Amino acid sequence: MPELRKDPISGRWVILSIERGKRPADYISPSQKRKGGGFCPFCPGNEHTTTPEIIAFRPASTSPNSPGWTLRVVPNKFPALQIHGSLNKMGEGMFDKMNGIGAHEVIIECPEHQLSLATMSQRAVEDVLWAYFFRITDLKKDIRFKYVVIFKTEGESSGASLEHTHSQLIALPIVPKSVKEEMDASKKYFENKERCIFCDIINQELFSEKRIIYENNSYIAIAPFAPREPFETWILPKEHESNFYPPQKSFSELAEMLQRVLKQLDYVLDNPPYSFLLHTSPFKEEINEYYHWHIELVPKLTKIAGFEWGTGFYINSTTPEEAAKFLREAKI
Amino acid sequence: MPELRKDPISGRWVILSIERGKRPADYISPSQKRKGGGFCPFCPGNEHTTTPEIIAFRPASTSPNSPGWTLRVVPNKFPALQIHGSLNKMGEGMFDKMNGIGAHEVIIECPEHQLSLATMSQRAVEDVLWAYFFRITDLKKDIRFKYVVIFKTEGESSGASLEHTHSQLIALPIVPKSVKEEMDASKKYFENKERCIFCDIINQELFSEKRIIYENNSYIAIAPFAPREPFETWILPKEHESNFYPPQKSFSELAEMLQRVLKQLDYVLDNPPYSFLLHTSPFKEEINEYYHWHIELVPKLTKIAGFEWGTGFYINSTTPEEAAKFLREAKI
Repeated sequence: MPELRKDPISGRWVILSIERGKRPADYISPSQKRKGGGFCPFCPGNEHTTTPEIIAFRPASTSPNSPGWTLRVVPNKFPALQIHGSLNKMGEGMFDKMNGIGAHEVIIECPEHQLSLATMSQRAVEDVLWAYFFRITDLKKDIRFKYVVIFKTEGESSGASLEHTHSQLIALPIVPKSVKEEMDASKKYFENKERCIFCDIINQELFSEKRIIYENNSYIAIAPFAPREPFETWILPKEHESNFYPPQKSFSELAEMLQRVLKQLDYVLDNPPYSFLLHTSPFKEEINEYYHWHIELVPKLTKIAGFEWGTGFYINSTTPEEAAKFLREAKI
Repeated sequence: MPELRKDPISGRWVILSIERGKRPADYISPSQKRKGGGFCPFCPGNEHTTTPEIIAFRPASTSPNSPGWTLRVVPNKFPALQIHGSLNKMGEGMFDKMNGIGAHEVIIECPEHQLSLATMSQRAVEDVLWAYFFRITDLKKDIRFKYVVIFKTEGESSGASLEHTHSQLIALPIVPKSVKEEMDASKKYFENKERCIFCDIINQELFSEKRIIYENNSYIAIAPFAPREPFETWILPKEHESNFYPPQKSFSELAEMLQRVLKQLDYVLDNPPYSFLLHTSPFKEEINEYYHWHIELVPKLTKIAGFEWGTGFYINSTTPEEAAKFLREAKI
């Protein structure tokens, strides 16, 4: 019997086709290992082909926009939004619009073309997390912005246009719909129970154990109860934290966690394409009791049909309990 | 300057990258014209290879599950949901679940393998709409069901696994999230204004004219103000109608409208893949003053990146005003 499950935060329902229970091998698509070859604007030596760097991690002896860096952040060459100008909010009859003001940046995660977030050094992953944090902290000062989306699409079928490992950042003058929905649902839960819904989920998952993928001292990775896609994975701090920041001024535990989970996914699904999305509280209510920042990792293993995209209703052929088991048992 | 636009019904924001303004030729992907060849279970003569038909339009002289039909509805051979059983709603700690009870059917739209909804006779399109209506009317009697999703994914990249033209139907014991969101937003608007939000949109579009794609006596096709994808098209009845049904017991005008718009899309975008989704009121509140049934046609021209999928926030490089103009001027 298939099962209908509701995600308690977003309210979306998912059909789990349990009989069709698919194993990892049923999903394996061409491995996303990097091929190299051809010109890469993100490789050392080609710094002049990108827009000038906003920040970079590099020895003091090297010059900006020259080799020697270990991480660079540059404005997107083809930005979806424009940094200069005023919002000029206005109506068009009953419709609402404003100028497309925002920042669109690229985080070039490491100099080596062949590496990925899973295979670079743990220290380099820590630096990526620091870069996210520094850029959020900087963009927060601009009163035009309400939210920063940090995302990564690994592998062509997730929409990555460049092979060299990178993340993207978009600072927005509005709070995106799905973030607003999560905030609203979390607030409502808190009003009823005086507890954070994510903290409650973590406690229940720690008790039942069956959907835990990995945990270290401070973080937990789970397969969510109602996953949209097979092997969807969430990483959350175990203690309540409403916004993304380095606890004890260190990202080492988070880097260890993130890399471990990515290695598990790479092992079980042979380097799948995936999307990475950081969910954190909007600037205006950064510190709160109801929302809990987290990372959502969603391997792109299936085509999203018109049905699922248009209804917010998903069909998934692998239960999170099975997915968590496969990932836990990965021999990495 | 790019523009940020808000869809008044769903509340989602869209970035319109106006400078990058793409023309139809920038989007053209391999034409979805049918190739034929190979075994097709939906072709006449192969009726025994599908599940037995639920209804069919066929002369009285022919037997069920044999040739002679002009349209067939059959249960999906690999249903996502199961028709027999009870819902058995229950909690799992703080989570909600129920048995995956529902109907999953396939509407084989015409016998000819090479035709599409755009190229079959108008009479055949009317029959497709009648089949939708008959199946909704029948499934409504089952008190376990709250909603019927009717959708179509034309062309492989929209997720269609079989080339022979067909639609799908899924009857659900819940109302999908995006339908619930549209209902809630429409109700709220009605509470404020005592008017249907869709009726107001139609009036504004009729006045401004710039986003109208086509209209006949009873229906209008528009490019919505904040389209998720280039060339997204909505078809709505001009008069207020909350649920999908045949006005004056005829679907001829709707068939004319639907086919005209599909021909325009086929002409401008060279037979693009697309998804078709019927949005109608849930059974419990079928007749109401606030919601307005409609069809959403979304050509699948771009990859949906992790960003857009995860945030409910879209980037679109063609304005609806340009898209409507290209479609209006299609020489069909």
